[in-house]
Amino acid sequence: MIKKVQKSGVTAAAGVQAAGIHAGFKKRKKDMALLYFPDGATVAGVFTKNKVKAAPVQYDQQALQQHDRFKAILVNSGNANACTGKQGKADVEETVKLLAAELNIQPEEVLVSSTGVIGMFMNMETMRKGVKAIAPELSEFGGAAASKAIMTTDTVPKEVSFTFEVDGKTATIGGMVKGSGMIHPNLGTMLGYITTDVAISQTALHAMLLKAADATFNHATVDGDTSTNDSVFVAATGKLANPLIASAEDAGYAEVEAAVLSICSQLAQLLVKDGEGATKFVEVIVSGAKTMADAVSIGKSVATSSLVKTAMFGEDANWGRVITAAGYADTEYFDADVIDIAFSSKNGEIQLCEAGMGVVFDEELAKKILEADEINILIDLHLGTEAASTWTCDFSYDYVKINADYRS
Amino acid sequence: MIKKVQKSGVTAAAGVQAAGIHAGFKKRKKDMALLYFPDGATVAGVFTKNKVKAAPVQYDQQALQQHDRFKAILVNSGNANACTGKQGKADVEETVKLLAAELNIQPEEVLVSSTGVIGMFMNMETMRKGVKAIAPELSEFGGAAASKAIMTTDTVPKEVSFTFEVDGKTATIGGMVKGSGMIHPNLGTMLGYITTDVAISQTALHAMLLKAADATFNHATVDGDTSTNDSVFVAATGKLANPLIASAEDAGYAEVEAAVLSICSQLAQLLVKDGEGATKFVEVIVSGAKTMADAVSIGKSVATSSLVKTAMFGEDANWGRVITAAGYADTEYFDADVIDIAFSSKNGEIQLCEAGMGVVFDEELAKKILEADEINILIDLHLGTEAASTWTCDFSYDYVKINADYRS
Repeated sequence: MIKKVQKSGVTAAAGVQAAGIHAGFKKRKKDMALLYFPDGATVAGVFTKNKVKAAPVQYDQQALQQHDRFKAILVNSGNANACTGKQGKADVEETVKLLAAELNIQPEEVLVSSTGVIGMFMNMETMRKGVKAIAPELSEFGGAAASKAIMTTDTVPKEVSFTFEVDGKTATIGGMVKGSGMIHPNLGTMLGYITTDVAISQTALHAMLLKAADATFNHATVDGDTSTNDSVFVAATGKLANPLIASAEDAGYAEVEAAVLSICSQLAQLLVKDGEGATKFVEVIVSGAKTMADAVSIGKSVATSSLVKTAMFGEDANWGRVITAAGYADTEYFDADVIDIAFSSKNGEIQLCEAGMGVVFDEELAKKILEADEINILIDLHLGTEAASTWTCDFSYDYVKINADYRS
Repeated sequence: MIKKVQKSGVTAAAGVQAAGIHAGFKKRKKDMALLYFPDGATVAGVFTKNKVKAAPVQYDQQALQQHDRFKAILVNSGNANACTGKQGKADVEETVKLLAAELNIQPEEVLVSSTGVIGMFMNMETMRKGVKAIAPELSEFGGAAASKAIMTTDTVPKEVSFTFEVDGKTATIGGMVKGSGMIHPNLGTMLGYITTDVAISQTALHAMLLKAADATFNHATVDGDTSTNDSVFVAATGKLANPLIASAEDAGYAEVEAAVLSICSQLAQLLVKDGEGATKFVEVIVSGAKTMADAVSIGKSVATSSLVKTAMFGEDANWGRVITAAGYADTEYFDADVIDIAFSSKNGEIQLCEAGMGVVFDEELAKKILEADEINILIDLHLGTEAASTWTCDFSYDYVKINADYRS
């Protein structure tokens, strides 16, 4: 009898192995993950904009400027190795060498990530033991274990994979993610790892990742509100054996770009849905903006407003909080007297504000719409043709109950 | 027997009467306040920067440009009269005329404020009855009632008064405030009313108020994160009969400026301390900045960080969250490698981060320091000589308990 094993997330693409173990940075839970590309992979990354950058982030940024192919990415949770000065840098370098020796590869082929407490030196004894213990666990079925090992306060592991067409062949892309930036007060860092089997240059991969991260992870959190360790990597093993994609003119570029965008989008939505205690996924769709920057700014302002998020939890059609948050967004063009606001979900759509004024609406229908798990807040600025989506979740904790019924 | 009655808050200064009643905008609680200056007062105001401005805010801004002396300010809670279009404007104008007729004054001598739900038309029937009912209640001892009537979700009325010296005489200043901007997710609007008996020009008063609001209310909340109705007024009755203060060169200017700053500071701190469920008052003191804008930006970034506020509630010396919030502030000059961070309270002071790196510290002492009701977070940027304070409170709700112990 042949047992069919479905490879998950980060190990879905050919040429990727992974492992996830308990090394000892945390008391009991898995806390060390390893991605391994036996024949190498082209890697691109995007990193936190915070002016305080953790030691591994600084290391990776330099490594990715100097090289384009790598064989391993080691991740630990439980200690961020941030604000650790020279010792932190030395610890990263030692870790890189330890892992390279263990895997019999070159130190220049290793990247590292860390997440956890800031300002504490890495327990290198634990790291040494962990590196020795994790290497033998590597497997092309290790994606699920790796996705558990990168978690901190995440409630569920988050992984995605799917196939798409490149050069007449079936390409695969998969990924895993942890944490979130702004959405949950308890989570500092977001880390993301995406792998694919296409053959592509680092320049092309980096351009796609930048564009995708800006349209997804940065719309699920808030620009600038980044931790010291935020990192997203894409690794391409080339096992598909397609003709190398080096520029936007090359065949397959558009398909890979769409796949990277799609997986980033799916991973970002998983982050939002894992908002601690979140009961609703909320998409703020701003249209009719004169500039894209205005659409994004208003979307983020509304999506991060505690008042809007508590109203969503309370299933209260309090559009006044929406227009208030829109009004304090940093925008170039804004006219409070022409804005329309509506709420929609699988249960219907209801107009609440027309030309900046409240309209009489059916409270029963509004309540029904807001009872859904996924809600859209639709804002039409009527000033132009630009539009943008921003994702958030409701605030669903007990303390919020106090605020949720403020309108009534 | 003579009963000594202490005039409170907004009626402490000579020439001011006030009242606070239940008009019916809310079910049971007081919801209408009136300030009355029988012989007139010079009034200055500062208002929300939100692009969506409530009808009364629009009215007051215009009125204060056209006139400098007023006799009455009417306030209702329960309905913001925001996003109400032409009807909202008409309702303000009708309210002004109603009150003028009731008090036998000119409509140009009336100002109005509203706070409450956005996007609903004012119940003018309630307004008419309220105006009739409140006028006979006016009294020079009505400050306490007025301070109750402007409350929405405030847990306590907030009023302050004190005397100071001008021109060799004892001047009085008093005030009341409600709500807060950013600090409490449940509160939309902040309203403030300050009265004094000095004789001063509108221009001078306005300059003082602008400066004071920027250094106090704007440091307790966040610039831009303003409701549709935020307003702070200062009214000066001139009953002290000092020589008119018209410019910064005039005798008494510095004293009044200091008094306005002091009362705004005290009222802003009352706002912060009334943070729903707040157990701690936190002052973030940023020093060593190269520019004042950098000091303010970092102070606000740290003071509004949910991660920092939950750590304060958890009495956890998690300075990593402080440096992270500092690192994503919008600053011109910032060097992560030279920052010092310390916590202090009446129980002592402890250095946690030196030159951007964690230092080994006494966890017991840190805990003892953070057990105090009032905590200072001290951040020295070591880049210059500018400094700024920002006030906030902790996040103390049940849901926060989950986050408060993340570090351990």
